[in-house]
Amino acid sequence: MTIGIVMGSDSDWPVMRAAAEAVAEFDLPFEVDVVSAHRMPAEMIEYGRQAASRGVQVIIAGAGGAAHLPGMLASVTPLPVIGVPVPLKYLDGMDSLLSIVQMPAGVPVATVAVGGARNAGLLAVRILAASDAGLRARMEEFQVRLKEQAHAKGERLRAEAATLTSSG
Amino acid sequence: MTIGIVMGSDSDWPVMRAAAEAVAEFDLPFEVDVVSAHRMPAEMIEYGRQAASRGVQVIIAGAGGAAHLPGMLASVTPLPVIGVPVPLKYLDGMDSLLSIVQMPAGVPVATVAVGGARNAGLLAVRILAASDAGLRARMEEFQVRLKEQAHAKGERLRAEAATLTSSG
Amino acid sequence: MTIGIVMGSDSDWPVMRAAAEAVAEFDLPFEVDVVSAHRMPAEMIEYGRQAASRGVQVIIAGAGGAAHLPGMLASVTPLPVIGVPVPLKYLDGMDSLLSIVQMPAGVPVATVAVGGARNAGLLAVRILAASDAGLRARMEEFQVRLKEQAHAKGERLRAEAATLTSSG
Amino acid sequence: MTIGIVMGSDSDWPVMRAAAEAVAEFDLPFEVDVVSAHRMPAEMIEYGRQAASRGVQVIIAGAGGAAHLPGMLASVTPLPVIGVPVPLKYLDGMDSLLSIVQMPAGVPVATVAVGGARNAGLLAVRILAASDAGLRARMEEFQVRLKEQAHAKGERLRAEAATLTSSG
Amino acid sequence: MTIGIVMGSDSDWPVMRAAAEAVAEFDLPFEVDVVSAHRMPAEMIEYGRQAASRGVQVIIAGAGGAAHLPGMLASVTPLPVIGVPVPLKYLDGMDSLLSIVQMPAGVPVATVAVGGARNAGLLAVRILAASDAGLRARMEEFQVRLKEQAHAKGERLRAEAATLTSSG
Amino acid sequence: MTIGIVMGSDSDWPVMRAAAEAVAEFDLPFEVDVVSAHRMPAEMIEYGRQAASRGVQVIIAGAGGAAHLPGMLASVTPLPVIGVPVPLKYLDGMDSLLSIVQMPAGVPVATVAVGGARNAGLLAVRILAASDAGLRARMEEFQVRLKEQAHAKGERLRAEAATLTSSG
Amino acid sequence: MTIGIVMGSDSDWPVMRAAAEAVAEFDLPFEVDVVSAHRMPAEMIEYGRQAASRGVQVIIAGAGGAAHLPGMLASVTPLPVIGVPVPLKYLDGMDSLLSIVQMPAGVPVATVAVGGARNAGLLAVRILAASDAGLRARMEEFQVRLKEQAHAKGERLRAEAATLTSSG
Amino acid sequence: MTIGIVMGSDSDWPVMRAAAEAVAEFDLPFEVDVVSAHRMPAEMIEYGRQAASRGVQVIIAGAGGAAHLPGMLASVTPLPVIGVPVPLKYLDGMDSLLSIVQMPAGVPVATVAVGGARNAGLLAVRILAASDAGLRARMEEFQVRLKEQAHAKGERLRAEAATLTSSG
Repeated sequence: MTIGIVMGSDSDWPVMRAAAEAVAEFDLPFEVDVVSAHRMPAEMIEYGRQAASRGVQVIIAGAGGAAHLPGMLASVTPLPVIGVPVPLKYLDGMDSLLSIVQMPAGVPVATVAVGGARNAGLLAVRILAASDAGLRARMEEFQVRLKEQAHAKGERLRAEAATLTSSG
Repeated sequence: MTIGIVMGSDSDWPVMRAAAEAVAEFDLPFEVDVVSAHRMPAEMIEYGRQAASRGVQVIIAGAGGAAHLPGMLASVTPLPVIGVPVPLKYLDGMDSLLSIVQMPAGVPVATVAVGGARNAGLLAVRILAASDAGLRARMEEFQVRLKEQAHAKGERLRAEAATLTSSG
Repeated sequence: MTIGIVMGSDSDWPVMRAAAEAVAEFDLPFEVDVVSAHRMPAEMIEYGRQAASRGVQVIIAGAGGAAHLPGMLASVTPLPVIGVPVPLKYLDGMDSLLSIVQMPAGVPVATVAVGGARNAGLLAVRILAASDAGLRARMEEFQVRLKEQAHAKGERLRAEAATLTSSG
Repeated sequence: MTIGIVMGSDSDWPVMRAAAEAVAEFDLPFEVDVVSAHRMPAEMIEYGRQAASRGVQVIIAGAGGAAHLPGMLASVTPLPVIGVPVPLKYLDGMDSLLSIVQMPAGVPVATVAVGGARNAGLLAVRILAASDAGLRARMEEFQVRLKEQAHAKGERLRAEAATLTSSG
Repeated sequence: MTIGIVMGSDSDWPVMRAAAEAVAEFDLPFEVDVVSAHRMPAEMIEYGRQAASRGVQVIIAGAGGAAHLPGMLASVTPLPVIGVPVPLKYLDGMDSLLSIVQMPAGVPVATVAVGGARNAGLLAVRILAASDAGLRARMEEFQVRLKEQAHAKGERLRAEAATLTSSG
Repeated sequence: MTIGIVMGSDSDWPVMRAAAEAVAEFDLPFEVDVVSAHRMPAEMIEYGRQAASRGVQVIIAGAGGAAHLPGMLASVTPLPVIGVPVPLKYLDGMDSLLSIVQMPAGVPVATVAVGGARNAGLLAVRILAASDAGLRARMEEFQVRLKEQAHAKGERLRAEAATLTSSG
Repeated sequence: MTIGIVMGSDSDWPVMRAAAEAVAEFDLPFEVDVVSAHRMPAEMIEYGRQAASRGVQVIIAGAGGAAHLPGMLASVTPLPVIGVPVPLKYLDGMDSLLSIVQMPAGVPVATVAVGGARNAGLLAVRILAASDAGLRARMEEFQVRLKEQAHAKGERLRAEAATLTSSG
Repeated sequence: MTIGIVMGSDSDWPVMRAAAEAVAEFDLPFEVDVVSAHRMPAEMIEYGRQAASRGVQVIIAGAGGAAHLPGMLASVTPLPVIGVPVPLKYLDGMDSLLSIVQMPAGVPVATVAVGGARNAGLLAVRILAASDAGLRARMEEFQVRLKEQAHAKGERLRAEAATLTSSG
């Protein structure tokens, strides 16, 4: 279980699922669980403490509102912790973002965009790739595909816009 | 030790001191300590767990930035927890406020104003006064004094403004 | 009537109802009323003044926009007042939150999250539990149930994610 | 006493003084007082209730943070109430502004800029001038002087900038 | 035409209509027009300049986004100008609010809440009532009705909540 | 191809289309393409570098979130670059706006409103008109039509409001 | 006078001076003046209307708070108008930025960063360079110098950091 | 050179220095350089492209305002990129934060707090420690020292507060 993906509630799963999917695209083993800082604090701390010895190398933690899970996990593990600000009904995730990113000196959380779970997965891949040339090569291939998809989108857009141009 | 006043770092003390002073004005016993959610998570959880059995009735917790201390303590104690958003160098305490007040359903934190440690102390007094008619009477006397001070300020201001009026 | 639950308008009830339900789960007596700071200021002040003598121990007040009800009640009662920022059509409750939480020194309001009425109810229970060991024990049981529910959610999520893992 | 200028504390006077000065420039009678919504709520309501019968025609109210004074006064008087958001140490007056301007339908407060006490005074003059052609003429003269001052500033600026141009 | 109600575009009418309705409830004569600061600046300035001589006593101006209409009208008339921040598709009216309320010293705009057109109408009534005891009495009657409506809402709410209490 | 209209993804086209339409109304030649700063950085830089030599005189670039496209293009071309903040699902385009407008000294981006693609097109026309009296005359005609449309809207609104007035 | 640099008050000059200096570095003729939308609206409109016929090709307008000058000028001229949000004492220029950038469809303002007057000057140069290959070449030389300065800074920084490295 | 620390300008060094110091505390080799996305875009892209082959495993990039450096580097390297939002004179780093963290799906940046350069260094250590048990053990020792320092702070605070208690 190289990558641990946890969230405060299963209501975060529709957002966090994209992290698991990104990791799965790179065929990396991962686990998914509900680990709530506020509803099961002791288990949350145990999860963080044992993660490294269980073989986890990177933790991805999603939470919303007063989002304490990523920072609390970071305080009990030496592993890199990636925080995903999950947007709630109000405030568009700004509370989640600030609660995760504004960590005090000593305990960092690698924060991604509001709702940015896919990027959390890709960041976990990059972190593992920092020490794995093969995985790094696969990330580079992934980036080439991103470029090709953007090219294809450009081709379609030019065609669509051409009708506007000729009639403009 | 009826009231526990804790903070993430001694750098919060210049703000949090006002909570202790307010409590002292009402002659209530209190304790002050550094309990960092991020630097000593296990001790923090122990503090919260044992507070009630040690006789603490209300916890006041101050923290800044990604301020997790009040919410984490609230998750491990049945006592009321008052959160004080301590403003840091940037963002004027808005990050501290949102990190403390936006708690998920199930685990409340009684949040006061940014830097509002004095009100945290007074809120602790009110909480104890909810079941203590004598203390409630003292809070009412306190409120009378607030009014009298405001009256005195008004008197001085009217005198000062009179010079403006007469020369205007 | 141990707990008074008031709001500026009946349009706040869909949000505030959760406060009443939380209190009811703990079998505590409560009352619900419309007490508008702006539309019936004299009655609002009377409500606050007489609350303690009528046996109310905690007031929960919800309001939106320029939300003055919680703070005004706090100014005329020695009881703890819990403020619920009710979100309106625009600004996502940020105006409600700041209007409630940023009280001046001397008059505290225990503020919960935007729309956080359920936590207001639970905070009222904790406040009463500060001086009531039996109620405190029930809050601890409640917290155990929160944990069990989170565990159950985790179990379901692991099952759901397993399909993703095996096909990933 | 045509114009009542009140504020929650004498600490607001350095900001609010400009309202009195503006009114004094138009030789209109005014009064200045500390009327705190939170520290002397009963007196605050009395002030609002009796203002019209005492001859006050416009109320200017300054307050900071959870600024309830302007809105509460507006709820107990039929007179126009002008609200001045006084900036406090944190949040740059955004809390004061939202607490004053976001009043519910039924009870308006005429809000000016953060710290905009001078404009509150001028707005009071305009309100009285709505039914007073002589005062309206004096406001028009005031506006002519504003223009002349701006012209004079332009002249000085063109001279200063000329040195830049010639050396540029 | 005692009250002029203008807006930057007819798309503001669904919001601004409430200002006209409030004024109509008090049987005050009013006019409604599109006066765009950005699309017809010369006519906008003419409107402001001639308003007083045409008998207008108060101007209500609604605008959204970079909302310049209220402030520009205030710069060319000695009359009181009430600004209504009309919310647009993005930013929830925060841009409209700041563009209207943050006027420089010398030229005030009486700003109401985001989308607060009804209160703009009521504020216009209060402004006229400052010099009209009869109108002031009608505003007081209006405030009594507000209170009665709030009482009726409270009665209904208590009945509804009673079912919750009895089953709680 | 006088005007280059580019965007980070074809998902920006529903917003950016208005820029193309505005330019087409002035019969100016334009091109549309997907040029992603993050997915095809090398091609993005090539696009910017060759734009001037290909005859492009103004670049319009739309992007959302961490919107780097306008600023990066501005860093590799001496042409004026107009940035359109495209709003994403969260934060209402505030992130896009700040990412585009807050450029460091040395490399300007001409930023328009959130979602303001039509104005980006019109700004491109004005930029070309700065050195083209004929085009400037057409922009003045366009502005006359804006005024006439506003007049027509006012006429319709006065008619609609008249029913309100007569029944009010 | 190719470039007109105007501002609402001479108090904006410490910020706006950088626009004039940037233009002067490119030896372009410019003029500087105080043109206040709120204090001299008629002259402001005249300035905008006559700018093109006086030979002005680009207008740079700085203003703070409810910053109406850039947008109002844009409504009366077909020339490109660059808006500089001048930060005032409170709100860090966020009010100035939104008041300038959020213009309605039809009337664009090319907005630069808060306090970004130097970039306003450079944007004016780019706008003129869009139709002037010689000026464009000079802008490219300017960009080369920017790069060289950054290189020099890097060299100094590497030297300074080396001491840290060797002692680290 | 395991860790590359770059920034847009040497004016960012007073903030970014803390990243280098943190890395130096763990005796990891690092390099420091000015790499400006806007002033030397080609070199910036080359830096990113060649980083992995030069042996860099993690890049730390600091930038302020429209902070494009971290995201642009992330688009041209498969390595993990840590972004440090450097606060500028206005807006308290909120623009820097959003410009860095809100990256589109596909290209993640690991964002830390505003001005959080020390945590950027510590995050780089954790990233390397994900595949290095020895380094992970040293991070755990570091965390133990954090705890001990917090304990020591608590001891001093308790002593200081005791004087308050005894005199309170």
